[in-house]
Amino acid sequence: MQRYFVPDDQFHENHVWITGEDAKHIMRVMRMNLTDKIVCANNMGEAFLCEIDKIQDQQVAAVIRSQLISDPELPVRVVIAQGMPKGEKFDTIVRKGTECGASAFIPFYAERSVAVWQKDRIEKKRLRLGKIAKEAAEQSHRLFIPEVTEPMNLGQLLAACKSFTYAAVAYEETAKKGELSALPLLLKQMKPGDSLLAVIGPEGGLSHEEALAFQVAGCRLCGLGPRIMRTETAPLYLLSAVSYQFELLNNEVGY
Amino acid sequence: MQRYFVPDDQFHENHVWITGEDAKHIMRVMRMNLTDKIVCANNMGEAFLCEIDKIQDQQVAAVIRSQLISDPELPVRVVIAQGMPKGEKFDTIVRKGTECGASAFIPFYAERSVAVWQKDRIEKKRLRLGKIAKEAAEQSHRLFIPEVTEPMNLGQLLAACKSFTYAAVAYEETAKKGELSALPLLLKQMKPGDSLLAVIGPEGGLSHEEALAFQVAGCRLCGLGPRIMRTETAPLYLLSAVSYQFELLNNEVGY
Repeated sequence: MQRYFVPDDQFHENHVWITGEDAKHIMRVMRMNLTDKIVCANNMGEAFLCEIDKIQDQQVAAVIRSQLISDPELPVRVVIAQGMPKGEKFDTIVRKGTECGASAFIPFYAERSVAVWQKDRIEKKRLRLGKIAKEAAEQSHRLFIPEVTEPMNLGQLLAACKSFTYAAVAYEETAKKGELSALPLLLKQMKPGDSLLAVIGPEGGLSHEEALAFQVAGCRLCGLGPRIMRTETAPLYLLSAVSYQFELLNNEVGY
Repeated sequence: MQRYFVPDDQFHENHVWITGEDAKHIMRVMRMNLTDKIVCANNMGEAFLCEIDKIQDQQVAAVIRSQLISDPELPVRVVIAQGMPKGEKFDTIVRKGTECGASAFIPFYAERSVAVWQKDRIEKKRLRLGKIAKEAAEQSHRLFIPEVTEPMNLGQLLAACKSFTYAAVAYEETAKKGELSALPLLLKQMKPGDSLLAVIGPEGGLSHEEALAFQVAGCRLCGLGPRIMRTETAPLYLLSAVSYQFELLNNEVGY
């Protein structure tokens, strides 16, 4: 069933008012009619089964039939701090990372980042990425739209580390040394509700100095297996590993 | 360092002869010169550090300096049977799946597959996907290029199941029922050297009848977590989970 995130102030008593792009999508792309059903989520952890009961001008109104009980959010909050990649790769990372359960994305200027977001285009970039996150969150039945923050430099990111329960840095050199147990050790220490900052380097990876600075700030250097992954694949590996550990392994009932 | 897969019959005593596209890449794109170093892999599990010592006509010769000892291959052989997806998605699946360690890809016509590979274009498609697999295998430092087989129908795929130690089917309905322990239970049973056929549905997923047919054939239905993933994301989740289980978790040294 088609899902839409609707701002909380558009929920009135037993009705949801859908406006803007989403109303157009319902009317023109999906060509829905009265009594058609949709799911509306409020981006505050709740989703409702709704039935369209008014279509007029540029607005759609739907009556709330029932609350949907589901738990599609990772039990731990994972924020991806992504070394600014080239071209359209950030789009892919936000789209796929949202599907895989990320809570937020922090673009950061790493030493080897080539791309720069021009100051006057940052808001436009964030709007575009926010739209991608909303669509991916709707498609993957998430209850929250991941936020894309303003870009940070190394100093800002190091300072931000402190507000997370744990921080992990994907560092290729760690993997090369065969040290692959750091990530599972960290994940096994985490408890539901904890937060994890996961730092991923840009193309070419993090520099030795950056890795050291993160380590000094209390982050753990983790290898993500023995293969060299592209920068846009690493966050998906990490999020999949978190899901496997918390949603599949910890769910085991035995034989 | 730049890596190239070179057919085994182009290894002669202590030299490797590089021809065709790769020779052009070395000469024109990388603009390499005599004494520059490259890595040559023979797609039979061996990689060598080589030094260019002849560039002439359309050929490059390099002398083998040493064998590289590394183990970038998953300890279990994972073959992705992918319900034929739309558009260019198979490219993404082969590229990213190769980065994540897949051994081979089987395109299969699922009930809900919309795309069809025209008979007279199958070889062209396979050539193109083979080239993508080779490039991704070089970039991720793999020792083998994953094969892309001819497309199969359901009957052929069911028959193929028998040649694998285990077969898993990613089935959304399993995840919806909260049954998420099937995949970790299966992976914990697997031993290094075992093979796993992983069946992924196309857009819209597998039909109930298909899931049942796979189950009757001895495949296990597995959920991949509570979020709805796109068809091209599911194989990456599964391969990441296999890597996490076999290369990270099983590598733990304790505190």
